[in-house]
Amino acid sequence: MLFQVEMTVLLPPEMPAERAAEIKAAEKAYAQDLQRQGKWRHLWRVAGSYANVSIFDVEDNAELQEIVGNLPLFPYMQVSVKPLCRHPSAVREDDS
Amino acid sequence: MLFQVEMTVLLPPEMPAERAAEIKAAEKAYAQDLQRQGKWRHLWRVAGSYANVSIFDVEDNAELQEIVGNLPLFPYMQVSVKPLCRHPSAVREDDS
Amino acid sequence: MLFQVEMTVLLPPEMPAERAAEIKAAEKAYAQDLQRQGKWRHLWRVAGSYANVSIFDVEDNAELQEIVGNLPLFPYMQVSVKPLCRHPSAVREDDS
Amino acid sequence: MLFQVEMTVLLPPEMPAERAAEIKAAEKAYAQDLQRQGKWRHLWRVAGSYANVSIFDVEDNAELQEIVGNLPLFPYMQVSVKPLCRHPSAVREDDS
Amino acid sequence: MLFQVEMTVLLPPEMPAERAAEIKAAEKAYAQDLQRQGKWRHLWRVAGSYANVSIFDVEDNAELQEIVGNLPLFPYMQVSVKPLCRHPSAVREDDS
Amino acid sequence: MLFQVEMTVLLPPEMPAERAAEIKAAEKAYAQDLQRQGKWRHLWRVAGSYANVSIFDVEDNAELQEIVGNLPLFPYMQVSVKPLCRHPSAVREDDS
Amino acid sequence: MLFQVEMTVLLPPEMPAERAAEIKAAEKAYAQDLQRQGKWRHLWRVAGSYANVSIFDVEDNAELQEIVGNLPLFPYMQVSVKPLCRHPSAVREDDS
Amino acid sequence: MLFQVEMTVLLPPEMPAERAAEIKAAEKAYAQDLQRQGKWRHLWRVAGSYANVSIFDVEDNAELQEIVGNLPLFPYMQVSVKPLCRHPSAVREDDS
Amino acid sequence: MLFQVEMTVLLPPEMPAERAAEIKAAEKAYAQDLQRQGKWRHLWRVAGSYANVSIFDVEDNAELQEIVGNLPLFPYMQVSVKPLCRHPSAVREDDS
Amino acid sequence: MLFQVEMTVLLPPEMPAERAAEIKAAEKAYAQDLQRQGKWRHLWRVAGSYANVSIFDVEDNAELQEIVGNLPLFPYMQVSVKPLCRHPSAVREDDS
Repeated sequence: MLFQVEMTVLLPPEMPAERAAEIKAAEKAYAQDLQRQGKWRHLWRVAGSYANVSIFDVEDNAELQEIVGNLPLFPYMQVSVKPLCRHPSAVREDDS
Repeated sequence: MLFQVEMTVLLPPEMPAERAAEIKAAEKAYAQDLQRQGKWRHLWRVAGSYANVSIFDVEDNAELQEIVGNLPLFPYMQVSVKPLCRHPSAVREDDS
Repeated sequence: MLFQVEMTVLLPPEMPAERAAEIKAAEKAYAQDLQRQGKWRHLWRVAGSYANVSIFDVEDNAELQEIVGNLPLFPYMQVSVKPLCRHPSAVREDDS
Repeated sequence: MLFQVEMTVLLPPEMPAERAAEIKAAEKAYAQDLQRQGKWRHLWRVAGSYANVSIFDVEDNAELQEIVGNLPLFPYMQVSVKPLCRHPSAVREDDS
Repeated sequence: MLFQVEMTVLLPPEMPAERAAEIKAAEKAYAQDLQRQGKWRHLWRVAGSYANVSIFDVEDNAELQEIVGNLPLFPYMQVSVKPLCRHPSAVREDDS
Repeated sequence: MLFQVEMTVLLPPEMPAERAAEIKAAEKAYAQDLQRQGKWRHLWRVAGSYANVSIFDVEDNAELQEIVGNLPLFPYMQVSVKPLCRHPSAVREDDS
Repeated sequence: MLFQVEMTVLLPPEMPAERAAEIKAAEKAYAQDLQRQGKWRHLWRVAGSYANVSIFDVEDNAELQEIVGNLPLFPYMQVSVKPLCRHPSAVREDDS
Repeated sequence: MLFQVEMTVLLPPEMPAERAAEIKAAEKAYAQDLQRQGKWRHLWRVAGSYANVSIFDVEDNAELQEIVGNLPLFPYMQVSVKPLCRHPSAVREDDS
Repeated sequence: MLFQVEMTVLLPPEMPAERAAEIKAAEKAYAQDLQRQGKWRHLWRVAGSYANVSIFDVEDNAELQEIVGNLPLFPYMQVSVKPLCRHPSAVREDDS
Repeated sequence: MLFQVEMTVLLPPEMPAERAAEIKAAEKAYAQDLQRQGKWRHLWRVAGSYANVSIFDVEDNAELQEIVGNLPLFPYMQVSVKPLCRHPSAVREDDS
């Protein structure tokens, strides 16, 4: 089941560089692991911003909450969620 | 080059059913043709709404305008556009 | 799987009373049938408005779209959707 | 008398972990007690956010204020309130 | 139990003058009757607008819905509702 | 001359409890004095929030500014103001 | 007593030119008369829009309502009102 | 050339009183000097807020930027700007 | 003197094609004439929308109003205006 | 390929003057270098604000992200991006 999630990161500029690097590294590892599992199906940067557009493929709402709520950057994010489903005009078989 | 485009369709309820069916059929054909060409890479329905989330893969801004501006439903749509690029944490090679 | 759906109805005041009554009757039958099936778990009027707060219990996003998109009043509604899941402080066992 | 209340928690990320844990534990106890009393009838997490959708069953506006204003997390919350009443299409007898 | 209700009237300018006068007369009679009953405790015009601020004193949410939903101008109104209760610094005994 | 004023208080949660108590006590004394003078005609809590709806009866805009700008909590408030006047359907003689 | 009023005119483009001219002529006469009386102290066009910024000098809120509510273009306007008073740094004696 | 500028001041409540007094005194002197030069033609307090409505009479956009950008309170302000010009219904000769 | 103007065109879909073509042709001629005169310095389509970003070079606010208010599509547009001036980091000499 | 980018700078007023000067100097050098390369085609101050309107000419979305994301002031900015393309009524050959 697919969800579009848009995340905007608002790291306080006064955060020590080391601490920021630490969280970002944890976020990267977390995101790459979920991508390899197929849970985080797409991850794109929104050009000109510290934001991304993501597509998650999860079992249910609970798994979405589990994944998003545990993002290392979650406490610093604005997140919006849209549930997706197959569009009647979609052509590809493997995209919903 | 990828763009996320969100389209919300606002067909006036008083439009004659035949006219609505005609435009929707044209839209479907148009959308499926562009999907087959690889220009309209993803097309998802936003559950609970008459809206979609789409990912376009185009040469440049001009081609995006060409494609979106010629949607049969374009005069009845609210459209928002976000330019995308590769995310530094993305894993898949073919997704930007 | 639960979703909160808020629906605001915007029937054009100039719609003939008969036509309005017809759509509302269809909506009522549709809503009551889904409530009896257990799909539309809660349905409350928002006091002072022509709007409701609803809780749906569906298989997945696709079923939510199926149900909401076929509401007889759907063409006259503003709809907002929030995916729900069990809250870590929830007490009742049968409420997610 | 029912009210829908949506709460979004905005804990400052720099709050010491211990202090945060303390407030959250107090919140949990408070919420569970009110659920057991039947005052806090439903409590759901909004998937992908630090927010909940709740349904309260209270005597009157004053009791709602009493309950919400004393939430341990109240100083860190954005709260929106909607008064609810029975929907003319509702089927269940015990849901308003 | 008190509620603050703000109503903004959006009568279509093309409505025949006679029809508009008819609805407004019905609204006036309805409003004055409820004021005399003590249900519609205050009614003020917002200066420079076709809007009012009202305070209702009702039994419960259901009665609020009953009263507001039956306003003759209801189909032409934007309405916002706020539940009120006694303020801890209020002085007058008869004002909540 | 009447004005509706809505005040939302945003006290920083990290303010020392003593300092907060001090400001709130000053606010209460100030509000009660103005109520007794008849300048602050109504004061209601908005249920479920740290906000109030107030009706002021002042000589002119300058007096409104004088009163609101000197609220002890003013530096911590969001304030919105609506000038009121008699509604053509109002019944009570002493309410404008 | 001064009020700043911003008016945005939304004449339906399909209104017959003659009817539009008629209303605009009535508006002009009305506005010029009030300016000559000193009630409508300033009237400026907002460049690039069909909108104005105005300063009214009236006895009280009721007179503001009387003047604004009777604008010939009032049914086609969005209006916002701000009560003004003397600024502590103002220099001119005759400007409040 | 006239511009309407609305300024809302957001001084952090925790700023030392002395520092605040210093900036406000500088602001006052700056504002009064520009008023005497005729550049800052009108300055009104918005009643019930820490905000003003101002009319500037400047040579061009660059001078507006020069004046507004150098306000001592500028780093603590939200500012909105509207370019003004003569209204076709304006009567006074010296007001644009 | 430069202004950025953003225009979004909202032609009613039910406008007869001929009438729409007529207005668009008039708009094009008008826009090209002003570009040739150097008044309309830049004109870009916003990709994926029926909107443009424009830079005007005018004598003053009055000329901006004159030009924008006479656009053949003006009655069908939402317009936002920003006054521009030279940026302290700008390099090109001929761009303000 | 052109993009319009609007940047609003929100430097915390409590930042030490030296640190602010340092970042601004870095920003200036960065901006001037990109202007000389032709990547940052236009840069204008929005009069009355700490904001600019910019036009970038880049290879693709990725280069836009590269440039904007590395602005020395980026952590202190609100940024909005609009993809541009040639307008069908544009006259100049070298402006898209």
